[in-house]
Amino acid sequence: MTIVLASGNRGKKAEIVKLFPSHTVLLPDERGIQFEHEETGETFLDNAMGKAQHLHALTGTPVIADDSGLCVRALGGAPGVFSARYGSEDNGQVLTDDDRNGYLLKNMKDVSDRRAFFVCSMVFLINENRFFIAQETVHGEITLSPQGDMGFGYDPLFFIPDLGKTAAQLEPDEKNEISHRGKAAAALAGLIARALP
Amino acid sequence: MTIVLASGNRGKKAEIVKLFPSHTVLLPDERGIQFEHEETGETFLDNAMGKAQHLHALTGTPVIADDSGLCVRALGGAPGVFSARYGSEDNGQVLTDDDRNGYLLKNMKDVSDRRAFFVCSMVFLINENRFFIAQETVHGEITLSPQGDMGFGYDPLFFIPDLGKTAAQLEPDEKNEISHRGKAAAALAGLIARALP
Repeated sequence: MTIVLASGNRGKKAEIVKLFPSHTVLLPDERGIQFEHEETGETFLDNAMGKAQHLHALTGTPVIADDSGLCVRALGGAPGVFSARYGSEDNGQVLTDDDRNGYLLKNMKDVSDRRAFFVCSMVFLINENRFFIAQETVHGEITLSPQGDMGFGYDPLFFIPDLGKTAAQLEPDEKNEISHRGKAAAALAGLIARALP
Repeated sequence: MTIVLASGNRGKKAEIVKLFPSHTVLLPDERGIQFEHEETGETFLDNAMGKAQHLHALTGTPVIADDSGLCVRALGGAPGVFSARYGSEDNGQVLTDDDRNGYLLKNMKDVSDRRAFFVCSMVFLINENRFFIAQETVHGEITLSPQGDMGFGYDPLFFIPDLGKTAAQLEPDEKNEISHRGKAAAALAGLIARALP
């Protein structure tokens, strides 16, 4: 069964493709589709669902879409659904991962409550009326400086006390096991096996 | 683990309680909670999620909530999210199941395309950031008159060609196996076992 994956983020793609080994997972451009979707929802769920419906309308196939982000308690849940655009210029230019991480650290200067969590809302949509969704979290703390060079995005700033490492210090398999995205994908993988044997 | 179930419909309650035998499923009033929730969403998913979040805010426990309805193709998807209120008087008085079924049959007089499907969007919410959702369907045809006296709601009008029976002619176990609600609950049951071992 071919499943098309709604993603424009290379890091996410690599993680997700790995988690669904029993199906052919294609990216939109591998189906000859130019897929751009503006994430305008108020929640991770809204964004993931919007993306899934949009991509399904283009492909007619089952699709997987996700929206993820980092929520920092002391910042009232920011950057949240704006994680990818956090600190972007008014002209819409998006920061690099490094610059965005610097921006977050600056906003957390002198903040002692470093608690944060990653959220991933992932949708597996077979058709517009039939779908499955898993939203998972992983809890941690924002470091005082970047540590580790694996992963992507905020990973170097996200320390997981249980493992004594940042997300950017985890091997891909180790990260998939405990991450918000890995857990959401694992939940859906069981359902996909059931729904599309 | 105690899970509180958001439902005001006795028929739904009986079906769902049966599907989660390994957990204590309580109804709001068994927790001493008066639960009323107005379904104002545009989709089954919105309604189920709104109910789940509302009930969780009251109980602090994991909750299950669902929203279901009948979509008739020739009626442009009606009654859809208005299934429970279909044909209600302007004064807000809700029809009995029998009167509602009569109303639907009247609206389908002389309609030859009888295709319809039931939808169930079911949410299992552990906390506001962590949840699982299954939305399932079952396809059938609207009969010319009610048949069968089991089930509830539109069941006597919903003929399932594969089984040669209406949903109201199915034994509870048989119905759970093929119904929109049974399939959504079965999908979530696996995730619940995983998430709350």
